[in-house]
Amino acid sequence: MTSPSSVQNSVSGPARVADVEEAVSLDELQLAARNHGMPLEALRYDVTPAGLHYLLVHYDIPFLDPATWRLAVTGKVTRELTIDLAALRAMPRQTRRVTFECAGNGRARLTPRPVSQPWLTEAVGTAEWTGVPLTAVLEEAGVLPDAVDVAFAGADHGIERGVEQDYERGLRLADAMDGEVLLADEMNGAPLPPQHGAPVRLVAPGWYGMAQVKWLQRITVLDRPFEGFQNVTAYRFKQRDESGDPVTRILPRALMMPPGFPDFMSRVRIVERGRHALSGRAWSGWGPITRVEVSTDGGTSWNDASLDPGDPDRSDRWAWRKWAFDWDALRDGPTELLCRATDQLGQVQPVEQPWNRQGMANNMVQRIPVLVRGS
Amino acid sequence: MTSPSSVQNSVSGPARVADVEEAVSLDELQLAARNHGMPLEALRYDVTPAGLHYLLVHYDIPFLDPATWRLAVTGKVTRELTIDLAALRAMPRQTRRVTFECAGNGRARLTPRPVSQPWLTEAVGTAEWTGVPLTAVLEEAGVLPDAVDVAFAGADHGIERGVEQDYERGLRLADAMDGEVLLADEMNGAPLPPQHGAPVRLVAPGWYGMAQVKWLQRITVLDRPFEGFQNVTAYRFKQRDESGDPVTRILPRALMMPPGFPDFMSRVRIVERGRHALSGRAWSGWGPITRVEVSTDGGTSWNDASLDPGDPDRSDRWAWRKWAFDWDALRDGPTELLCRATDQLGQVQPVEQPWNRQGMANNMVQRIPVLVRGS
Repeated sequence: MTSPSSVQNSVSGPARVADVEEAVSLDELQLAARNHGMPLEALRYDVTPAGLHYLLVHYDIPFLDPATWRLAVTGKVTRELTIDLAALRAMPRQTRRVTFECAGNGRARLTPRPVSQPWLTEAVGTAEWTGVPLTAVLEEAGVLPDAVDVAFAGADHGIERGVEQDYERGLRLADAMDGEVLLADEMNGAPLPPQHGAPVRLVAPGWYGMAQVKWLQRITVLDRPFEGFQNVTAYRFKQRDESGDPVTRILPRALMMPPGFPDFMSRVRIVERGRHALSGRAWSGWGPITRVEVSTDGGTSWNDASLDPGDPDRSDRWAWRKWAFDWDALRDGPTELLCRATDQLGQVQPVEQPWNRQGMANNMVQRIPVLVRGS
Repeated sequence: MTSPSSVQNSVSGPARVADVEEAVSLDELQLAARNHGMPLEALRYDVTPAGLHYLLVHYDIPFLDPATWRLAVTGKVTRELTIDLAALRAMPRQTRRVTFECAGNGRARLTPRPVSQPWLTEAVGTAEWTGVPLTAVLEEAGVLPDAVDVAFAGADHGIERGVEQDYERGLRLADAMDGEVLLADEMNGAPLPPQHGAPVRLVAPGWYGMAQVKWLQRITVLDRPFEGFQNVTAYRFKQRDESGDPVTRILPRALMMPPGFPDFMSRVRIVERGRHALSGRAWSGWGPITRVEVSTDGGTSWNDASLDPGDPDRSDRWAWRKWAFDWDALRDGPTELLCRATDQLGQVQPVEQPWNRQGMANNMVQRIPVLVRGS
């Protein structure tokens, strides 16, 4: 229980890394109770059903009335715009199937553990997002020649490491204008749920979740790099106190749907001796997945999985790709199942942790402990 | 990372209580990442939107094809039934607004902490459930005179403390036949989502979540008390190793929508000096809430909140009731906000923990640390 005397000290401390022997705190648990992963058995679905998609909310879920909601487009533009929901919905619409992943996915498996939202491996989900291409709105406003960045401000308000803010993220103009980014008001064919940014959010295919600004209220075109907290302080690759490189697109990852059935408490899987059709999904924000490998002996040996060809019209090119592998479980006893993805840039998931002090973009391979038993 | 050598030991250990200095383990965190609470700002909604309702899945979310799903009604009945979804949906239907709460809500705030799903205070939600009264199905089967219990088996399969099982719970015949229990196939006007028991689940208004069997497959009428794991071993009030009393209906609880805005990491709230309209919800599975009190000074003094009258036709009699309280925050600095409910049986939420070794039905009052600041 937080005592009143400790309240002042806990608002709003610096980022830190847990001590070697320090287990998960109630602060981290509070975040885990709010911000849920996708149960891994939901890897069976091409499109993640509502409520199973991962969720990360920095502050509170705000309530925005769709009837009074307005989007302001301001800054280095020819004409500033104020757009209501009806006007936005009247513009030409597109639907994209996109896999989202939190940049902090895997953080709680790092040693030492950065203290923040304590994700294991499930901070992922795939949805069909429908909305208006960002380019259409920016072209209507008329971006001025000296523009370099575009900032997107949401309505969720909080304080983080001493900085009070509405959640706001910048994209470079070229990324904002790449033709992929949507202002989405529908998820899986229904209006956005409150927790996913209702009434309108940004969808930047291929980018980690921090770029997918929810509860969007204001777009500001800038003639200088955006220097808000979420770009300059959070979401950087740092080893110590240096400013570090920015976190951008999603590094390749494969996940496996755990076979067999679980123990309630440990989630260790029991599988019967015999053949098991292992399957899962793999994705990268840098381009198509070209290879998935599976190890059924704890990482000693690896074998290629088969890859689903994906949608031939490429409307799903930013969505995960299905893979499959038949496993003959011949020996009773414990083992570990692993899988790893390679993308078309040749980026391979590491078996050892790629540590950084904020626990960003850690795509270390998944390990599933299983116990094979005779039938 | 679980090493192969530790796998065998972790399947499937006995229940235990954490050591005094033992913080939350990765096993507990795995459960927290899957089984999410309702973010407390969602207390603003009369009916919890999809995906914000709390979720507790003992094993895996199974996939049941609605086209081939069948419900078997068997045991001490005149005629055994096998019902498909179309036949069930053709029977007379009812809709009830019901508040669900996990029996383990509040567990992670206990000292010492029982090691299980580590809920803080958010394992709650209210939905509108539509389906067929259980009485209609049991009357069609014809319950024999010597029946005493009814057991409900779901499709989720796992192992728990060494007992391999499909999740199954029993109700006494009188409780099963009280006219309130539904076989529900819709939540908030849409087909049940996979994680809430699709295609059909039990809804037993007033009972803790363990009675709300999801992915229902088999109803067995018994001429003896049901002695399955979830009734006889789990979901009991125990201090040590005795068998203990069963956990049944929901004890009274009030929750407050946290005012102001949060710090990202600690979730401590910042509120401006001045007047704040505090509000929240309160519920009991034993009957209507008759009183909600609020403390704004850490529990030293208490004041009555106003209570919403609720739906006059009582179709929401098993749903939470809204309360409101105006708080004049006059002094800068830290304080704690508390609220507590009383129900018509005179049951009052305790300020001190009602400890038991499985952390069941712990309705200790919520405490919200806030920091008041001058404007």
